[in-house]
Amino acid sequence: MDIHKLTSELQVKNDSKIVMLVMDGVGGLPRTFDGKTELETANTPNLDALAVRGVQGASIPVMLGITPGSGPGHLGLFGYDPLEFLIGRGALEATGIGFELQPGDVAVRCNFCTLDEAGNISDRRAGRIPNDQSVPLVDKLRQVAVPGVETFVEPVKEHRFVVVFRGEGLSGDVADTDPQATGVPPLNPVAHDQASEKTAEVASKFLDQAKQILAGQPKANFLTMRGFAAKPHLPPYHDVYGLKAAAIAVYPMYKGLARLVGMDVVGQAKTLEEQMDLLQEHWDEYDFFFVHFKYTDSTGEDGNFDAKVQRIEQLDAAVPRITALKPDVLIVTGDHSTPAFMKGHSWHPVPTLLVSERCRPDTCQQYNETESTRGGLGQFEAKYLMVLALANAERLTKYGA
Amino acid sequence: MDIHKLTSELQVKNDSKIVMLVMDGVGGLPRTFDGKTELETANTPNLDALAVRGVQGASIPVMLGITPGSGPGHLGLFGYDPLEFLIGRGALEATGIGFELQPGDVAVRCNFCTLDEAGNISDRRAGRIPNDQSVPLVDKLRQVAVPGVETFVEPVKEHRFVVVFRGEGLSGDVADTDPQATGVPPLNPVAHDQASEKTAEVASKFLDQAKQILAGQPKANFLTMRGFAAKPHLPPYHDVYGLKAAAIAVYPMYKGLARLVGMDVVGQAKTLEEQMDLLQEHWDEYDFFFVHFKYTDSTGEDGNFDAKVQRIEQLDAAVPRITALKPDVLIVTGDHSTPAFMKGHSWHPVPTLLVSERCRPDTCQQYNETESTRGGLGQFEAKYLMVLALANAERLTKYGA
Repeated sequence: MDIHKLTSELQVKNDSKIVMLVMDGVGGLPRTFDGKTELETANTPNLDALAVRGVQGASIPVMLGITPGSGPGHLGLFGYDPLEFLIGRGALEATGIGFELQPGDVAVRCNFCTLDEAGNISDRRAGRIPNDQSVPLVDKLRQVAVPGVETFVEPVKEHRFVVVFRGEGLSGDVADTDPQATGVPPLNPVAHDQASEKTAEVASKFLDQAKQILAGQPKANFLTMRGFAAKPHLPPYHDVYGLKAAAIAVYPMYKGLARLVGMDVVGQAKTLEEQMDLLQEHWDEYDFFFVHFKYTDSTGEDGNFDAKVQRIEQLDAAVPRITALKPDVLIVTGDHSTPAFMKGHSWHPVPTLLVSERCRPDTCQQYNETESTRGGLGQFEAKYLMVLALANAERLTKYGA
Repeated sequence: MDIHKLTSELQVKNDSKIVMLVMDGVGGLPRTFDGKTELETANTPNLDALAVRGVQGASIPVMLGITPGSGPGHLGLFGYDPLEFLIGRGALEATGIGFELQPGDVAVRCNFCTLDEAGNISDRRAGRIPNDQSVPLVDKLRQVAVPGVETFVEPVKEHRFVVVFRGEGLSGDVADTDPQATGVPPLNPVAHDQASEKTAEVASKFLDQAKQILAGQPKANFLTMRGFAAKPHLPPYHDVYGLKAAAIAVYPMYKGLARLVGMDVVGQAKTLEEQMDLLQEHWDEYDFFFVHFKYTDSTGEDGNFDAKVQRIEQLDAAVPRITALKPDVLIVTGDHSTPAFMKGHSWHPVPTLLVSERCRPDTCQQYNETESTRGGLGQFEAKYLMVLALANAERLTKYGA
């Protein structure tokens, strides 16, 4: 079943506005079996008022029991089956630091490492050298020049950085050079298919020159390459949904993910207030707005239940600024759950709320996990959420006569 | 997952009776977000009594967010995945006027149009000429004789009519001749594949002769052809379910859809009472009865909430005539929702009720949208309904040992 084939065929244009408010990692767990989740503990009068008017369900990001990373989590919300559309590790890392990949680019995750005198790896992470040591080394590597391709080298954090190769005829199926062991030399980049042979050659030349440049460094005297990945092909929002879409996010990863599906990244907000300002400013220019709120995830990752509750309440207080704009369809959801109890992402379904004039309201009185399991949307795969959004915006015509 | 492969393998025969009562477009929306739907407003003591005994769920006709036409809506109920089995426009139009398509037939939707002296289309609908003018012209077109094929010409409404070509070696993949514009000549019928070349030639000859016949008509001096479609291949009920099936419908479209899956169309009922009479009369002859009630859809299409409520109550009053026959399995459902609020079909899930001695009753007390979302069948794709019907009729044996 090809969702985008259907939405491409059935899409119609109108002047409706759709807002998708993503509370990253919003789903949680109670601290005790009879207790309340973060969302159920939080005082959320605005979200609850929406729950009364709207229809709720429990969305499954990927598959029952599967915990998604940020990439698959957002792809699902954006309507791209996360089991079909894959963002390779290198491409996700480049996206996460705000690097704008172009079609045909190949991105690679790199680690500085330490080689001993025999040329064997003695430390796969070069002692996790701090940024103030690694960033200048990344800068030195920008001297590398491989004929026929353009090369970008960008720091990530500590020993981690990204290399992007740009040129004709590059493909991403190249084996890692990290042997995942010490006491052995790094591997050579080997192409898994013919289309990736040029990439392997280019990487090999890059590594040769890098070795010269890094020679003599006390710790970071070489590097390994992992997760070679071409820019993923994600048919853009405009084509598959007929939507001119804007992304309003604070963190580079989410701006990057939105760019990959053809959204415009709007503004440089640092706070939720500034995100709301941007939403208001650009209201007339776009059909669809993806608004991303990070801190429900980061507090969950920290295992800080109370801080997550506070962040949910902070978000709730911003909701009236959205509803004041009178979106035709307002969706409140998350890309996955991040229970403070688990200090990480989880597979649990995500409370998802849709409000529109044409939704069929259910009996839910609050926006939270427990209510969502008895909501009118039932339990559903997140990849269908965009179809529901378009339907409620009357942007899809009938299938068949 | 091939549903029919499973049901073909597992089917067993017995003397059970299954009734599927389809209230077309039964699902609705409240007039206000805190109000009741049409079904929730209606007084339905008989359906509610069934809801207490049975198990309910919310069926999705095609996919979350996708609004079906009558074709896909019924195919889903009949157990044919509406995304896999397609009824082409021409075939549906022929079906809708009660034309019995045979395997190999190609049906085409035609419009009378007006050509100017230069041969360009000046009116794509020939001034929407009324039936009393178009029907005699359709009759004239029956003179067309294309060697090697049999040709049928049947009126639909105003400028619309259907042509069916019957013969060896015809296939339906031919481009429309309607250029969708005025001031340009009609297009020639062009085959999209080799198998359809004969159809294109036949259509071309038909058009040549039709031009002669219509020459001199003030408005309808030519025609365009759209939606060429072969009879769809739908494996018949008898094979895939082992059921001898009867359709009891008032409108030609639903009789036609039932014929396409191998049901016998029984009688010529004009009213619900007559439909009930037919059900009773033919009770011993068939295993399965599809009973179609149109007016819940047509009142919804009219945007007439109160009339839809009345039609639901009318249907409810007929239910005792069905239960008096003691069907082993009684299903009450719809092919889609048609909320009066939207004046048209919609994507909303359909309250679906199944009553049998072997169903596992849930806690639902009424048959309606809100109850259906907390029913024992959960939310499910309509295409699985026939499997549930067979199971409850003990007409399926175990899968695997």
